[in-house]
Amino acid sequence: MAHQEKATSGVEWRITLGDGSSKSLVPDAGPVSRIWIGLKGLIAGLVLKVWKFLKRAWDIGVDDPRKVIHCLKVGMALTVVSLFYFMRPLYKSVGGNAMWAIMTVVVVFENTVGATICKSLNRVFGTTLAGFLAFGVHWVASQSGQEFEPLITGASVFLLASTATFSRFIPSVKARFDYGAMIFILTFSLVTVSGYRVDKLFDMAHQRISTIIIGTSLCILVTMFICPIWAGEELHILISCNMDKLANSLDGCVDEHFNYNGELKDRDKQPDKKLLGYKCVLSSKATEESMAKFARWEPAHGRFNFKHPWQQYLKIGASMRSCACCVEALKRCIDSENQASEFTKKHLSNICLKVSSNSSSVMKEVAKTIKTMKRSPSIDFLVEEMRSTVQDLQNELNFLPKLLSPPEVLHPESKGTEETTSTTHLLEVIPVVTFASLMIEISSRIQAIVETVEELAELAEFKGEVQEKDKQNQPNTNRIVASQLNDDQQTMKALERV
Amino acid sequence: MAHQEKATSGVEWRITLGDGSSKSLVPDAGPVSRIWIGLKGLIAGLVLKVWKFLKRAWDIGVDDPRKVIHCLKVGMALTVVSLFYFMRPLYKSVGGNAMWAIMTVVVVFENTVGATICKSLNRVFGTTLAGFLAFGVHWVASQSGQEFEPLITGASVFLLASTATFSRFIPSVKARFDYGAMIFILTFSLVTVSGYRVDKLFDMAHQRISTIIIGTSLCILVTMFICPIWAGEELHILISCNMDKLANSLDGCVDEHFNYNGELKDRDKQPDKKLLGYKCVLSSKATEESMAKFARWEPAHGRFNFKHPWQQYLKIGASMRSCACCVEALKRCIDSENQASEFTKKHLSNICLKVSSNSSSVMKEVAKTIKTMKRSPSIDFLVEEMRSTVQDLQNELNFLPKLLSPPEVLHPESKGTEETTSTTHLLEVIPVVTFASLMIEISSRIQAIVETVEELAELAEFKGEVQEKDKQNQPNTNRIVASQLNDDQQTMKALERV
Repeated sequence: MAHQEKATSGVEWRITLGDGSSKSLVPDAGPVSRIWIGLKGLIAGLVLKVWKFLKRAWDIGVDDPRKVIHCLKVGMALTVVSLFYFMRPLYKSVGGNAMWAIMTVVVVFENTVGATICKSLNRVFGTTLAGFLAFGVHWVASQSGQEFEPLITGASVFLLASTATFSRFIPSVKARFDYGAMIFILTFSLVTVSGYRVDKLFDMAHQRISTIIIGTSLCILVTMFICPIWAGEELHILISCNMDKLANSLDGCVDEHFNYNGELKDRDKQPDKKLLGYKCVLSSKATEESMAKFARWEPAHGRFNFKHPWQQYLKIGASMRSCACCVEALKRCIDSENQASEFTKKHLSNICLKVSSNSSSVMKEVAKTIKTMKRSPSIDFLVEEMRSTVQDLQNELNFLPKLLSPPEVLHPESKGTEETTSTTHLLEVIPVVTFASLMIEISSRIQAIVETVEELAELAEFKGEVQEKDKQNQPNTNRIVASQLNDDQQTMKALERV
Repeated sequence: MAHQEKATSGVEWRITLGDGSSKSLVPDAGPVSRIWIGLKGLIAGLVLKVWKFLKRAWDIGVDDPRKVIHCLKVGMALTVVSLFYFMRPLYKSVGGNAMWAIMTVVVVFENTVGATICKSLNRVFGTTLAGFLAFGVHWVASQSGQEFEPLITGASVFLLASTATFSRFIPSVKARFDYGAMIFILTFSLVTVSGYRVDKLFDMAHQRISTIIIGTSLCILVTMFICPIWAGEELHILISCNMDKLANSLDGCVDEHFNYNGELKDRDKQPDKKLLGYKCVLSSKATEESMAKFARWEPAHGRFNFKHPWQQYLKIGASMRSCACCVEALKRCIDSENQASEFTKKHLSNICLKVSSNSSSVMKEVAKTIKTMKRSPSIDFLVEEMRSTVQDLQNELNFLPKLLSPPEVLHPESKGTEETTSTTHLLEVIPVVTFASLMIEISSRIQAIVETVEELAELAEFKGEVQEKDKQNQPNTNRIVASQLNDDQQTMKALERV
């Protein structure tokens, strides 16, 4: 329709131009047509803006269809609750207070099950508590005579509203009962103050609480049984996906550094997106925290028990962020300088690529552990392999100066005087050494991630894939672990020396 | 009181022990006393918990008295709005709809002026728009006969609620009209659905909108004229304080690195707190964003115009975080290894301390620029000085290999064979070189901060302290700036080679 309009008016405009047959005559076409042109431009701009907006909205819907489903769920819950008005017997029982059910559904319905339950319980308990308190205050006020009644009511509203508002600043209250405190103030003020006018106070409070309970139960039922989105599951998936992303961006960084000359330029776009995975990890703190907050309110669902250790996921997230910070430093290292000598680069490239592939395979294995919720039988082996390659890298670094001190032997092409050669060499080594020491740092942070995930596996009682075999080999394993620990301590000491 | 009780019951218990004269007889003291002891423990625990909670709340209040003032403001606004119920003439004009004014105050009153205005406007416009739409739908429904009325009403609620919920997922809507969309759904459902029952629909809608306007105006008045907390000013102060903190923690880090041996151990606690200032910078992203979001809604206040470039503060914040990331790497550098040889450390300590003191004085000057909102006359000079010391550091690094290549001359005490000496030297140099290259990176990021602040100064039209003089010297200054730029480019190229 809009397209057709554009086309016809475009033709009109060209006719006007043909009539005038010179550019200076165009403004003489009359104020009406000028206004028309201006208006047309305005409308076209508006249509374009609306079109772009709708396009973006459509993309959001296509990207995550669950958002669309959530919207349909809200619409459905509201329509169901409207039945209170349409059905005569139901309306008679609660009357005008049915609006509280509608209001509850609008305010309480959230994207995830946990958030909906959290808000629902806060609303019900906040309302009930405030209702009882308001009754008490109203009784005291009504006993104290006509004159004092407004005074006592006003003072109690002032005091309790201030106190409840202040409680919202206390972190432990804010984390769980922020919404409840607001509802408490709301209900207390409404009931206390309207108690002064409305005679059937008890009936009103009773109907209001029952409609709120109806609204919240409806919300909880709809959110739990129609395509539920569990905050806990989202957190679980987020953490394991972020771990995969981190592993990929580590791999990508190291690949880019050592294969920079030509090979990667063909697929310029593809690795770029992969490389920036660590940024997702760095920026997901707020999401993780709110998910963990809401996951606590959820009942057992899928593979998760009621008391699933959601707080441990925050610890895993924190250790992943500390690792992602190092990957960012690594990325900066690549971006800022590519002047490391090809000789030293080649010399270290094999071992560095090995460290990075081992590190990322440890991370991928850990991500798999989280995804499947099964202890991995090979994680100890992989970590040990990573440690030994880190030790190899360490040895290579120790060996580097020896390679450099007699430069003439290994570098037949001498670059001038002896002095400048030696100068160039140290300066050329520095970027590679920085890169390698960051790799070592990253692998030690990956070990920290593995530890936090192992804590999670213990707390959440992940099943082992080879539990039976493990029990038989217990003493042996212990001995091996002890010797590994010794090795590790030595390795760590060696690392600290670099 | 609780203390006294404990003491007396403690005595009772000892008497019982004396009577029994053996430990096995204690449980025979009777179930009543056992219950009493248990109950006492429970009460004591509860009292202790409540006491701790109150203590924490008190600390929060003492730390930031403005929070307490905010609570008192909420209490006051609520008490004032309750007057609608208490005053007979006022109550007669709006009736039971006075509750919407109370509800508005509870829901809309926020900590900062910007947030309150944002929510107020959202509430008023959301309600008005939804009200008009609901009227239209109600009229259509009432024209279409008894049978179709509930059908049309239900379908419109479903459609508009789903659409409005979906619009809350679109970032541009979410940033400004999230609350408005919710209020739209609420009002539309309430008015459309109750239109089916309530006859005097127009009166109800009119009263409701007017009470909401009364509530929001009261909130805006109280929040603006009684100890106002402006989101914009908070953002302004936050940014300049964070800049000072960053400067201090940079200074502290470098001091700790070079004066580690003994000198700093006496004042162990004091520098630690100072050192961790960069963590504040790293974690303040969410606060900055919400402050900037609300600051847009605020009218001109204090030194800020209505169209103050609040978005630019977010850019400054981002560049500060990128610098803080480097400071974290520097801190890690210090924590992980102190094995750099004293010789190289001493050799570079003076120049490193100079770079850090110049860098932090640039940052402090920039913080002062923001604080006073006046262009600093000395900032160009300070930046130039920082650049030249960075160049010096660069030269020292270039000179380092020459110092090391004949180790016997400078180090009279030879550590064994020649081979091991040279090995030790390269390894000892690495941490110091890493430290120095981080310092260089930090100074280049500080230049980025200076640039974003200069953009802010232009956008917000900061006054220059020596504006008149500047104008006279314009051509000269330009030439100097151009030559500086040339120098910088050369310096940067030199830096990249490290």
